[in-house]
Amino acid sequence: MKVGIIGATGYGGLELIRFLYNHKEVERVSVFTSSEEGTVFSAKFPHLVDILDEPLQKIDYAALAQFDVVFASTPSGVSSKLFPPLLDKGPKLIDLSGDFRLKDLKSYEQWYKKEPAPQEAVDASVYGLTEWNELNIQEAKLIANPGCYPTAVLLSLLPLLKEKLIDPSFLVIDAKSGISGAGNKPSQSTHFSEANESFSIYKINEHQHIPEIEQAISMFAGVETKISFNTHLVPMTRGILATSYAQVTPGTTQADLIHCLQETYKNHPFVRVLEDGSSIGTNRVKGSNYCDVFAKLDERTGRATIIGVIDNLVKGAAGQAIQNMNVQMNLPQTMGLKTVPYFI
Amino acid sequence: MKVGIIGATGYGGLELIRFLYNHKEVERVSVFTSSEEGTVFSAKFPHLVDILDEPLQKIDYAALAQFDVVFASTPSGVSSKLFPPLLDKGPKLIDLSGDFRLKDLKSYEQWYKKEPAPQEAVDASVYGLTEWNELNIQEAKLIANPGCYPTAVLLSLLPLLKEKLIDPSFLVIDAKSGISGAGNKPSQSTHFSEANESFSIYKINEHQHIPEIEQAISMFAGVETKISFNTHLVPMTRGILATSYAQVTPGTTQADLIHCLQETYKNHPFVRVLEDGSSIGTNRVKGSNYCDVFAKLDERTGRATIIGVIDNLVKGAAGQAIQNMNVQMNLPQTMGLKTVPYFI
Amino acid sequence: MKVGIIGATGYGGLELIRFLYNHKEVERVSVFTSSEEGTVFSAKFPHLVDILDEPLQKIDYAALAQFDVVFASTPSGVSSKLFPPLLDKGPKLIDLSGDFRLKDLKSYEQWYKKEPAPQEAVDASVYGLTEWNELNIQEAKLIANPGCYPTAVLLSLLPLLKEKLIDPSFLVIDAKSGISGAGNKPSQSTHFSEANESFSIYKINEHQHIPEIEQAISMFAGVETKISFNTHLVPMTRGILATSYAQVTPGTTQADLIHCLQETYKNHPFVRVLEDGSSIGTNRVKGSNYCDVFAKLDERTGRATIIGVIDNLVKGAAGQAIQNMNVQMNLPQTMGLKTVPYFI
Amino acid sequence: MKVGIIGATGYGGLELIRFLYNHKEVERVSVFTSSEEGTVFSAKFPHLVDILDEPLQKIDYAALAQFDVVFASTPSGVSSKLFPPLLDKGPKLIDLSGDFRLKDLKSYEQWYKKEPAPQEAVDASVYGLTEWNELNIQEAKLIANPGCYPTAVLLSLLPLLKEKLIDPSFLVIDAKSGISGAGNKPSQSTHFSEANESFSIYKINEHQHIPEIEQAISMFAGVETKISFNTHLVPMTRGILATSYAQVTPGTTQADLIHCLQETYKNHPFVRVLEDGSSIGTNRVKGSNYCDVFAKLDERTGRATIIGVIDNLVKGAAGQAIQNMNVQMNLPQTMGLKTVPYFI
Repeated sequence: MKVGIIGATGYGGLELIRFLYNHKEVERVSVFTSSEEGTVFSAKFPHLVDILDEPLQKIDYAALAQFDVVFASTPSGVSSKLFPPLLDKGPKLIDLSGDFRLKDLKSYEQWYKKEPAPQEAVDASVYGLTEWNELNIQEAKLIANPGCYPTAVLLSLLPLLKEKLIDPSFLVIDAKSGISGAGNKPSQSTHFSEANESFSIYKINEHQHIPEIEQAISMFAGVETKISFNTHLVPMTRGILATSYAQVTPGTTQADLIHCLQETYKNHPFVRVLEDGSSIGTNRVKGSNYCDVFAKLDERTGRATIIGVIDNLVKGAAGQAIQNMNVQMNLPQTMGLKTVPYFI
Repeated sequence: MKVGIIGATGYGGLELIRFLYNHKEVERVSVFTSSEEGTVFSAKFPHLVDILDEPLQKIDYAALAQFDVVFASTPSGVSSKLFPPLLDKGPKLIDLSGDFRLKDLKSYEQWYKKEPAPQEAVDASVYGLTEWNELNIQEAKLIANPGCYPTAVLLSLLPLLKEKLIDPSFLVIDAKSGISGAGNKPSQSTHFSEANESFSIYKINEHQHIPEIEQAISMFAGVETKISFNTHLVPMTRGILATSYAQVTPGTTQADLIHCLQETYKNHPFVRVLEDGSSIGTNRVKGSNYCDVFAKLDERTGRATIIGVIDNLVKGAAGQAIQNMNVQMNLPQTMGLKTVPYFI
Repeated sequence: MKVGIIGATGYGGLELIRFLYNHKEVERVSVFTSSEEGTVFSAKFPHLVDILDEPLQKIDYAALAQFDVVFASTPSGVSSKLFPPLLDKGPKLIDLSGDFRLKDLKSYEQWYKKEPAPQEAVDASVYGLTEWNELNIQEAKLIANPGCYPTAVLLSLLPLLKEKLIDPSFLVIDAKSGISGAGNKPSQSTHFSEANESFSIYKINEHQHIPEIEQAISMFAGVETKISFNTHLVPMTRGILATSYAQVTPGTTQADLIHCLQETYKNHPFVRVLEDGSSIGTNRVKGSNYCDVFAKLDERTGRATIIGVIDNLVKGAAGQAIQNMNVQMNLPQTMGLKTVPYFI
Repeated sequence: MKVGIIGATGYGGLELIRFLYNHKEVERVSVFTSSEEGTVFSAKFPHLVDILDEPLQKIDYAALAQFDVVFASTPSGVSSKLFPPLLDKGPKLIDLSGDFRLKDLKSYEQWYKKEPAPQEAVDASVYGLTEWNELNIQEAKLIANPGCYPTAVLLSLLPLLKEKLIDPSFLVIDAKSGISGAGNKPSQSTHFSEANESFSIYKINEHQHIPEIEQAISMFAGVETKISFNTHLVPMTRGILATSYAQVTPGTTQADLIHCLQETYKNHPFVRVLEDGSSIGTNRVKGSNYCDVFAKLDERTGRATIIGVIDNLVKGAAGQAIQNMNVQMNLPQTMGLKTVPYFI
């Protein structure tokens, strides 16, 4: 397989390269750019010397059409324009941005403050939450790879919502992310001396992943709800942990919660259902494509605490994208993705 | 004033020393220990060379009785035994542990898994949430200094609960703390290589600060409720940020929320009500006795997001303890505490 | 005293504000800027709400001439132009940049790649290494406050060089700094995700503090030498530790090294000579104006390892600047600077 | 191949597992312990759920004799006793501790303060610096895998010493390591709150890697020298950067230095010679088996600055051990080790 990456210089792109280098069906990875044509990739990123020494290429549709798979790992507002002309040209398309996730174009405009992709392209796209949408992904020409927060949130909540073990009417999701989620562009809030040793909340009640989560809850659990959702920056590079709170439905026990999660994911290699919640941290999944999930009933309040943990750059971005590519290409889901979490 | 500190080798004790060194009414600080008698304090803590070069002293009631103020900054289960004999001996007593906070001894036993302090001593103690209990603190012989999490949570929530702007029936509090909150005793979960670059949740639904928060909500806001409360470890040393969620009562506006907070704290120098929530982080209060609070109505859901931020070792421990000492001693609350947050 | 700060939005400026707020002879601090006139300082830096709520003022010579002291905490190439017109206008001037440090203008041009300050202004300036130049500082109109690295290096090496206990002919200085030393301007190399969890060397053999160190060794120890000097970035915010290596002169013992340091600094409150080198870290001085120094003879090689530790923003910048101000103003050196290192 | 790991619960052991899991010639990894027999490995290390769910086994020579390769990743003083009885029993032995590195038993006793391994076992062992000792490693029954610091130091210095481009008579090596180098055992100096945000020097002039480096310089470069060597703790988990200083021999140019390094390593896939030293950090090699090396002549002083960078847990421990296993087993050196540095 020949694979092209548009936006390879971002963190999602770098993670695609990290995994594709060891993917045995990928013969070649080419990198495309809108602004640094000709720069040898490893000159810009010296950690890739001897690994990816080829130059960044200008984005060229004729060239891209020759690839088997093209990933876009670009800021929102880019692939909405770049991908539609490629839609029927041959390559499978996988978009890591938010441009094709929201089926309602008005919602996209409202939350992203950008012009949406054409309706036909959005209609053609398939939401790439692999464990919940595998059959559609197999047939998809264009995958809208899920957002990092939605991945951690949905994988932990969807089984319980679908099986009606928790009440969707008052659903609080409190999410925390490492700073790599903010991308590779320097800014004051991601400047080391200011981000280091500080934990902060941002975009209070206004994160653009809110409509994506609500849409997926509707799509996969058949439930309409308005969530409370907030996001925080943790002074570390990688990792997302989402803590959710909801009333359990009458009669639901701790065993029911765990059983539901286990049944849902028993044939899914990348979701691990924890049985012991004594201390759950992002270091358990760091560098890997795992999502660890857990739920704990609080008998005092009748509410459950539900936890999802991922590496935001892997299961929350590049790893899940490759998992989707594997599904599209009829390869084992785990191909190229069997890395052990580094833990330390 | 002569001040004694029992448990001075813990992080709360070290912070007491840091602030008392610049408190102009404190003439002398003596340090007491149960196990390292004779060790010169600055030999154990070389950052204090030329600052505190006196030896740790054996705990001795006759000696302690000569002090004006005695702080206990010990693990739970220690001051419950050490303080009662000193209760009528002269010094003002300020306990930084949880031993005198819960008025219900059974609750203490259940959450702390330890033998409670004698009922009389608990009855005599005053909960030292300075901004909400100043009059009682002035008269107190024994202060139960609030826990770190409760301080951030209560200062942000109490005004809104008391004024009935938020509905207490479904109150979710999601709290995050720097690792210094776990104390100075090495363990696997606080070992640098394992705590670093990982964000984790611990004691799910079981943190011992739950009954303290519920008791204080009852005491100061007159509301009985059972909270959902979870705590997380952030890979940084200092700081707590608590994010709370509750339905607002009908008709409540964003302006109402801010106005309520501002009215409550207009004469309180250490609580700052933010007006802009674009990005709120623990670096705003680091090293200082400030608590920053904010509330944001989410019009979509009718719920408010409420935020409290402190330095866990200062406003959440030593700083508030000195603030309480100032109140007890009829000194200005800010004496010795006017440090500027370091930000970076 | 009325104090003005030009470049107050940088990290050196913020530290000046942190210390001056508690300096009892400073009545008022005003902040000046070339680009953000009118912005309320605490709106830009919310950690300073209630502390510095006045607006940034346009740089205006007539206004500045009314101050008792004016600090410039600007990038190199700025105060070389701003300060000369103020030289005889009244205020004591203290420059935290490198613009007045090098007496040889050609050397400045070569290492800083900028146009030097006028020769007369450079001639009038006094190098503000307080412990070594106190008499000149008392009389100075314009202080060239030392660089962060030179402060840690010189305070540890000068006594041994001056007393000829070490051989200057092969002097290796390997220095490490927290990232705040790179200033507040975002860049790729100080972007959190890239600086975090990485230790790097930069400006190999080419750091502009090399000529400053060599000039000061000549000036204060009477020794001409060419040093090997390298600088590294440590993934932490504050702190410098410099490790130096030199052959000891024949007959020199470990006791001689320590004795020499102790004699030199016995009357200097901010330099602490360590006697035990079992583990020396920047946390011993963090947030304070201390410089800790140590030397250890390696009997195997006949070389000494010499260590200097400071907080780069305090003793390496704002703290030493205020110490110099105190000397200029005939105040005790320690006024406003008696903060305890935070250690954690 | 069946592989056994003694001391698998340490960080070296965990890294062996991380890499062996994707090594296609390794069929099974078994884990041995002296103290936690029966504990399911993934119950102790939940990041390994679904990866290594087998129990820790008691150390049993009969069982161990059945393996193809046995690694010991134990503290010093353990494999000196455990390995000798296995020496002629079948498995290839690879020791990650310092127990078999020093050929002179007295030197071991002096620097390690422990009883040395039997002379015959030490004589039989081969120093596993792969790039410099490949032929001997192929034949070895027992590999003494190099220390983390020596690996970074030797790979960067040996070519220049062997080719006499630098003068060994005054060789300064200033090394810095992430905290994982201190192992997994909690202590005050590795307690998060005390290690975080502090850079420290430890074991001044006394690190046990000094004789190992001097022995290897003698063995591979034919040069006898006494080095100045110091080690520092960096507040990050992984990575070593060693900065060395030496006079260059007359006539040596910058091009000579780089050329020498390039010639030495042109056929060695894991050593990358940098050509540009503008900023070299440990993030370039993190998680990978690469060692990046560089040298820069300082024309002012006639001295070279020489840099070696590794991930201490990979090229400095488990990665090099597997590289040695590959050599012993006549497999390509890179098998199982072709991971891309994670960079962020």
